[in-house]
Amino acid sequence: MDERPIGIFDTGVGGLTVVSEVMKALPGERIIYFGDTARVPYGSKSKETITKFSLQLVNFLISRGVKAIIVACNTISSNSFGELSRVVKIPMTEVVRPGVAACSAATRNKVIGVIGTEATVRSGLYEKYLKESVPGATVYSKACPLFVPLVEEGWTRNSVARETAGIYLGELLELGIDSLLLGCTHYPVMIDCIKEVVGDVTVVNPAEAVARGMKTLLRENGLESGLERTEDHTFYVSDNTPKFDGTCEAVLGRKFGAVKVDIEREE
Amino acid sequence: MDERPIGIFDTGVGGLTVVSEVMKALPGERIIYFGDTARVPYGSKSKETITKFSLQLVNFLISRGVKAIIVACNTISSNSFGELSRVVKIPMTEVVRPGVAACSAATRNKVIGVIGTEATVRSGLYEKYLKESVPGATVYSKACPLFVPLVEEGWTRNSVARETAGIYLGELLELGIDSLLLGCTHYPVMIDCIKEVVGDVTVVNPAEAVARGMKTLLRENGLESGLERTEDHTFYVSDNTPKFDGTCEAVLGRKFGAVKVDIEREE
Repeated sequence: MDERPIGIFDTGVGGLTVVSEVMKALPGERIIYFGDTARVPYGSKSKETITKFSLQLVNFLISRGVKAIIVACNTISSNSFGELSRVVKIPMTEVVRPGVAACSAATRNKVIGVIGTEATVRSGLYEKYLKESVPGATVYSKACPLFVPLVEEGWTRNSVARETAGIYLGELLELGIDSLLLGCTHYPVMIDCIKEVVGDVTVVNPAEAVARGMKTLLRENGLESGLERTEDHTFYVSDNTPKFDGTCEAVLGRKFGAVKVDIEREE
Repeated sequence: MDERPIGIFDTGVGGLTVVSEVMKALPGERIIYFGDTARVPYGSKSKETITKFSLQLVNFLISRGVKAIIVACNTISSNSFGELSRVVKIPMTEVVRPGVAACSAATRNKVIGVIGTEATVRSGLYEKYLKESVPGATVYSKACPLFVPLVEEGWTRNSVARETAGIYLGELLELGIDSLLLGCTHYPVMIDCIKEVVGDVTVVNPAEAVARGMKTLLRENGLESGLERTEDHTFYVSDNTPKFDGTCEAVLGRKFGAVKVDIEREE
């Protein structure tokens, strides 16, 4: 029995879609969340900068006494997980592998689409893992840089969201994909719009698989809290922006006042 | 005669529209540009964070020996110019006042629209200055958070740009504005699309007035270079992103390889 919290972090609000699934799968686990709202988005930054910033976030969570960490951001997972693993000595999971596993189970024709930020697509990691996991698979990756700003603006179902999704995804549809992996934790917030555009293509949201993976990891390491249910969660941000609390409430169904931390000084 | 460069800075590529006008109005002046591409956009950040980041940028330019500074970002100008002025002892101009002057000259019916980032609109500065400058004016401000990501994506004239402009600007058109002030240095990059949406409303791009203002300031302070023409400009960024050089070429008409600087370490 270990009542220390799980640390979950992202560049902003995207990781909240992972928090939502962790709350469902592990209702007895406390959560400490960090959203780097002062420096979001990471998706257009270089690998070096992504690694530098995310090391600061990981060190902050460790200083708060977490027992395990979820990297709830595909950009960080695909660019910097190796570097983070070298300094983190507690169990840590990411969002790429679980998404690959879920998508591998979903495809029938082995023609798979992956969407994410520019940095995630540039890493080439999804392509590599999907081809290892599904022999003979054809993988098409597409960066969708406007999806994160649309989600941050709350335009997840209007005409601009549909038009943008049409442009980004139309190309993948023409290539004959039968499954589409959401390779960015922001994207599930606009999943209804994405599903409308792609029709009968199977849309894979990795968040559920990520939560299941953390459940296994806690059990294997004897780190389960033993509590039946807790609401003792803490949300940190690097900048106070009114939208964070709003999106937090929209995604998680209740208010959590976020606490601001000067992450550059914490280092 | 003073051949030291002028420092111009912005959160990313937006300030390049000001650089373009400065190059035209002051062809004999050297320019040092800084774009904070590692932490762009500032428009959704708090005033405190905007001030902290922009002080780092100003200190960097001063350490490089500039003789004058242009704050080529409306978000920084409207939130942090007072704080910057307290530490900067060389001539420094910003982009809000020149835009106000140009727009005051343009309006006939005294019903004025201003568009900018969330932080610029929140500052209330345009409204205050325009009402001082045009007695009896009615000013409507509107944040357009998706315009910056659209410009960064290069979608400045397609259907998504037009639809987005239609939603943001439709509201202002219904209120009877006769002039529209572009209160963000990114927006002139999509001026054709904006003009198409607003029809016969006068669209005011402050960059030209900013360049003229710097010309006056140099003359008044005896800081003119005396050169007829120079191409000796230097571009710094806080993160290497392939898009910066591309936008730089598109806006300025020639290639300038940007040099990366770790701005957090420079402080």
